[in-house]
Amino acid sequence: MSLKNIRVVLVSPIYSGNVGSVCRAMKNMGVTSLAIAAPRGSLETEDARKMSLHAYDVLQKRTEHATLAEAVADCGLVVGTSARQGLYRNHSETPRALAPRLGEVAKKTKVALVFGPEDNGLSNDDLQVCTQVVRIPSSPKYSSLNLAQAVMVCCYELFTASGEYEAPEALSPEAPSAMRQQMFKRWRESLLEIGFMKEDKADHIMLGLQRILSRGQLTIKDVRIMIGIARQTKWAGAEAKKSRARRGL
Amino acid sequence: MSLKNIRVVLVSPIYSGNVGSVCRAMKNMGVTSLAIAAPRGSLETEDARKMSLHAYDVLQKRTEHATLAEAVADCGLVVGTSARQGLYRNHSETPRALAPRLGEVAKKTKVALVFGPEDNGLSNDDLQVCTQVVRIPSSPKYSSLNLAQAVMVCCYELFTASGEYEAPEALSPEAPSAMRQQMFKRWRESLLEIGFMKEDKADHIMLGLQRILSRGQLTIKDVRIMIGIARQTKWAGAEAKKSRARRGL
Repeated sequence: MSLKNIRVVLVSPIYSGNVGSVCRAMKNMGVTSLAIAAPRGSLETEDARKMSLHAYDVLQKRTEHATLAEAVADCGLVVGTSARQGLYRNHSETPRALAPRLGEVAKKTKVALVFGPEDNGLSNDDLQVCTQVVRIPSSPKYSSLNLAQAVMVCCYELFTASGEYEAPEALSPEAPSAMRQQMFKRWRESLLEIGFMKEDKADHIMLGLQRILSRGQLTIKDVRIMIGIARQTKWAGAEAKKSRARRGL
Repeated sequence: MSLKNIRVVLVSPIYSGNVGSVCRAMKNMGVTSLAIAAPRGSLETEDARKMSLHAYDVLQKRTEHATLAEAVADCGLVVGTSARQGLYRNHSETPRALAPRLGEVAKKTKVALVFGPEDNGLSNDDLQVCTQVVRIPSSPKYSSLNLAQAVMVCCYELFTASGEYEAPEALSPEAPSAMRQQMFKRWRESLLEIGFMKEDKADHIMLGLQRILSRGQLTIKDVRIMIGIARQTKWAGAEAKKSRARRGL
């Protein structure tokens, strides 16, 4: 997917601060092309600059167009967003379902994501220009999202589908089974040594411990730590025994 | 999943307006329990009220706690969010990967989603209180999300995983194959009738038309419309022929 071919189009946004927030959300998700259709006024405001924070470049590089049709004239797909239902709106998809397809198309041509004004969203006339409609899943108790939040969810889905995100590398790989077994053997020895359990209860208690330690990921580093604890515990148990023996207990 | 058991915890938020935006994002995604840990000042501000819009009830029902540990004392899982990497932070998961597990746990007990202050995020001390760390996928060029945007992405993932969203019902089911075939038969007749194609090119052109009309979903209603057009087109073609014949052409 090329996120470079994704264009966010805002139709007649009311609050310039919201446009600033939109820029930040876009840049967070690797989308940097912004177009304003039928602008209401200047977006060169202190609010817009403040809310865009480190995405002021997105705001500055925006294009402005008299109509939505002009803003998307070169786009192969034009995706309208709508929270309302009704004519044209019922065949909507979720951003997640649509994201892979948009990504495919964006490899070859421009794709527009269109958002309506804060108060009423896209009009039916606007939707006529769109090739598809997305609806962000939301609670029926309060389904109207803030403009920048709606942009964030859509761009987040595109960014996630693009596969551009690389998770921070785990420091250590998952421990192999033999190493885990070694760990449990050491723990068994140490728990016996400190008198936490007697031999006849050991199997039962070790099963519990195995269950506890098998629930999450256990890396080689984690297992080394656990083996270290067992070793030190066993040592402390042995010392305690000697001390008690010296004191004739 | 019970979204009722999800608690959003904000640690020392700086801007009350952001807390208002957080409330709106939460309610949009069906999450309504908010706790503030180590508050910096009053959240009863005009900014907070304005940004929360129809989620002012979430703001009003919030709880406030002296420390993060107190705010999450009754929670079975405590999920910290972090954009930074480093100690404790590298074993992070994405909100999408973690959402199903959080949903499972939230069926039985409270789950906390913890967000740090706008400027620096969660401290290492805060992360010590957390049972896991999530990291929202974002562009390496600008990875720091607005607080309310981060809350939105996490709550959106939980809401989506909860399965509580019902897509608006499509007005008409996908058309069965026989109906589609009927449609293509009518179109073939009409395109021959109006002279758009001759019999020798008809198969080739009909293959193109089938390709075009098979790309998207085609409901029974859609097919009826297309059959209607073909019928009317054929009629017009026949009338045109008669007219030309009358005029001796």
